[in-house]
Amino acid sequence: MKNAFYAQSGGVTAVINASACGVIETARKNSDKIGTVYAGQNGIIGALTENLIDTSKESATDVSALKHTPSGGFGSCRYKMKSLEANKAEYERLIEVFKAHDIGYFFYNGGGDSADTCLKVSQLSESMGYPIQAIHVPKTVDNDLPVTDNCPGFGSVAKYIAVSTMEASFDVASMAATSTKIFVLEVMGRHAGWIAAAGGLVDDSIPVVILFPEIDFDETKFLSKVDKNVKEFGYCTIVVSEGTKWPDGKFLAEQGTRDDFGHAQLGGAAPVVANLIKDALGYKYHWAVADYLQRSARHLASESDVEQAYALGEAAVNMALEGKNSVMPAIIRTSNNPYTWEIGSGELKDIANVEKMMPMEYISDDGFGITAACREYLQPLIEGENYPPYKNGLPDYVVMKKEMAEKKLPPFEV
Amino acid sequence: MKNAFYAQSGGVTAVINASACGVIETARKNSDKIGTVYAGQNGIIGALTENLIDTSKESATDVSALKHTPSGGFGSCRYKMKSLEANKAEYERLIEVFKAHDIGYFFYNGGGDSADTCLKVSQLSESMGYPIQAIHVPKTVDNDLPVTDNCPGFGSVAKYIAVSTMEASFDVASMAATSTKIFVLEVMGRHAGWIAAAGGLVDDSIPVVILFPEIDFDETKFLSKVDKNVKEFGYCTIVVSEGTKWPDGKFLAEQGTRDDFGHAQLGGAAPVVANLIKDALGYKYHWAVADYLQRSARHLASESDVEQAYALGEAAVNMALEGKNSVMPAIIRTSNNPYTWEIGSGELKDIANVEKMMPMEYISDDGFGITAACREYLQPLIEGENYPPYKNGLPDYVVMKKEMAEKKLPPFEV
Repeated sequence: MKNAFYAQSGGVTAVINASACGVIETARKNSDKIGTVYAGQNGIIGALTENLIDTSKESATDVSALKHTPSGGFGSCRYKMKSLEANKAEYERLIEVFKAHDIGYFFYNGGGDSADTCLKVSQLSESMGYPIQAIHVPKTVDNDLPVTDNCPGFGSVAKYIAVSTMEASFDVASMAATSTKIFVLEVMGRHAGWIAAAGGLVDDSIPVVILFPEIDFDETKFLSKVDKNVKEFGYCTIVVSEGTKWPDGKFLAEQGTRDDFGHAQLGGAAPVVANLIKDALGYKYHWAVADYLQRSARHLASESDVEQAYALGEAAVNMALEGKNSVMPAIIRTSNNPYTWEIGSGELKDIANVEKMMPMEYISDDGFGITAACREYLQPLIEGENYPPYKNGLPDYVVMKKEMAEKKLPPFEV
Repeated sequence: MKNAFYAQSGGVTAVINASACGVIETARKNSDKIGTVYAGQNGIIGALTENLIDTSKESATDVSALKHTPSGGFGSCRYKMKSLEANKAEYERLIEVFKAHDIGYFFYNGGGDSADTCLKVSQLSESMGYPIQAIHVPKTVDNDLPVTDNCPGFGSVAKYIAVSTMEASFDVASMAATSTKIFVLEVMGRHAGWIAAAGGLVDDSIPVVILFPEIDFDETKFLSKVDKNVKEFGYCTIVVSEGTKWPDGKFLAEQGTRDDFGHAQLGGAAPVVANLIKDALGYKYHWAVADYLQRSARHLASESDVEQAYALGEAAVNMALEGKNSVMPAIIRTSNNPYTWEIGSGELKDIANVEKMMPMEYISDDGFGITAACREYLQPLIEGENYPPYKNGLPDYVVMKKEMAEKKLPPFEV
């Protein structure tokens, strides 16, 4: 009977811990087939440095509370393993650590990079004569993994952005006659407009202009669209992706602003867009930058997102027990209305380093909104509310005890 | 039997419509004593221009839904009536409009300025021989009205800021070992630190540094505190009020940044603080500006805030029916633990133009946190959750039909 290793990778989300909960609870249910689940402290770095959290020391109540706790309960990191050729020693170290702790299952919870790491670990472990079953558990607010219909973490961000867009628009609408007419909300998504697209899920009676990273920023066309909305509706809400770029490829956020000392000022796209409007059209504005609030907002998580995140963690363990390797459980959409889905799977070789972009047919012809097809895709992902329990007015999130397993190997520098 | 006039004033909140609901529903329950409730379209401007919404045309279901809908359902405005001496004509016009529509009750839902207007209308109406009973219904996210224990709108913003601070801190904590160590959240409150103080409601295990508008920004002391937190906890969260100032009185947000064309760039305090930390300490940062999201976040409203907002609207009508004039219903706290409160009242002459500042004993000695007394005061205000109903993944907020009453007077320019 082998032990398991679980690690969280890259930017955390409102529901990555729900996947952790699915992995750990399912492993516990199969304690006759699977031993201790170790978790990497701060992700894969914890494996390399042999900092393994012994999750068997966490109470069932605490593990269960992971399902409603945002962030990475065991710590995550942005650490991309180099290619096998460039740093074989790192991969070998991983496998040595796994061997030292009798680990036969590797569950890696992340995006495209971690799918690639997962695949390589599986391949190298075989050639090193200590085979590891490597299963990737999908996670990314960017929603850019192939094979799976959507990525856990995305649905909750989308819900947060859609609700925030709606609420701020209601606010502006009620003041616009004599005050603020423009509200700009900056959202995440440096490469893909999935998150920005969620701003388009509000009712059509709310005038929303979306700036996607996929579409070069056309200032004239944009200002004309905004002006038209203000004249028709009295106000306009703009949802701008942090990745929106000028035609020359420069990010809007890198507008070359300088402070009194000449230092480059990193601004954000929202104030840039707001100032452009003010200068050209004279409308009073307000702007917000949601930043981490959007991806950590477990208080407003989408029910389907939470359920899918848990189900994928559960499925990963079941697939491991079925002897599978180099695979990723995935969400397969079986119907839009009513929304139904089931768990399928994909091969890591088809997933690693493949980015699923937003289809151009999801963006409206003028480049400032979403199409009916996009709405049909996104709508089910924000459905349902899944509230955390509260204590003293605040969510009752759990903090893991993080008892460390004893080290068995010499130190290793990362 | 006289009709009533209700208007929303100044910046809207997550619960000002709950007060509107309290006013309208209570008036409807007393339809033998009070006639039609007219609402000002876009606040007091609607009265001056005789744009009166006939709320009797709104269905009971829609009026009831105001209780869970943020923003100003009838429109609000930032329009401060000048002094009686400077613009007596405006006050006289108000009273003419009230007279033309047989309005005997004036319910004005706002902050200190509107309490002042309310008082003047009552005084002038008496001297003009058409007495109006003027009742002020308190509302302001700034929490700066005297007499009342707290102001409807504030509790929900405080809950939003406390929850957001907690969630973003969980996020940063789980990435800090190898990535972002600093998170800066900018919050509202140009003159008073009440909203910023709410960031201090998170558990003591989360290192939060608060920058209050009441305390001159001491860069050296601040950087040292942040560095200490990062060294002890691995990360630091900063909640900065938009009103935080340098010792010379300049807002942090007005750091004199210029774009490529030399235009002044209105930045926000958060990026300024984040850049100061980066320059001095080298820590990677993220920042967010909550702006309107915080005051429109009905999805995360505080239960006590919603109940109090409604109760004050209800009390205003009951006070009018009891023949009272130039008064404001107020929240009287009767116990902290368990939290209990009742409705009291104050005279408008004691409320108009009086600002209740945050007591200095609520700010910790180092100027970067809240005291136990402050926590005791704030804690009950964020207690309880009051979720709106949802439809298709989004809150089911109501939009009023806004049928206008027929005009009876010649036009009036504002």
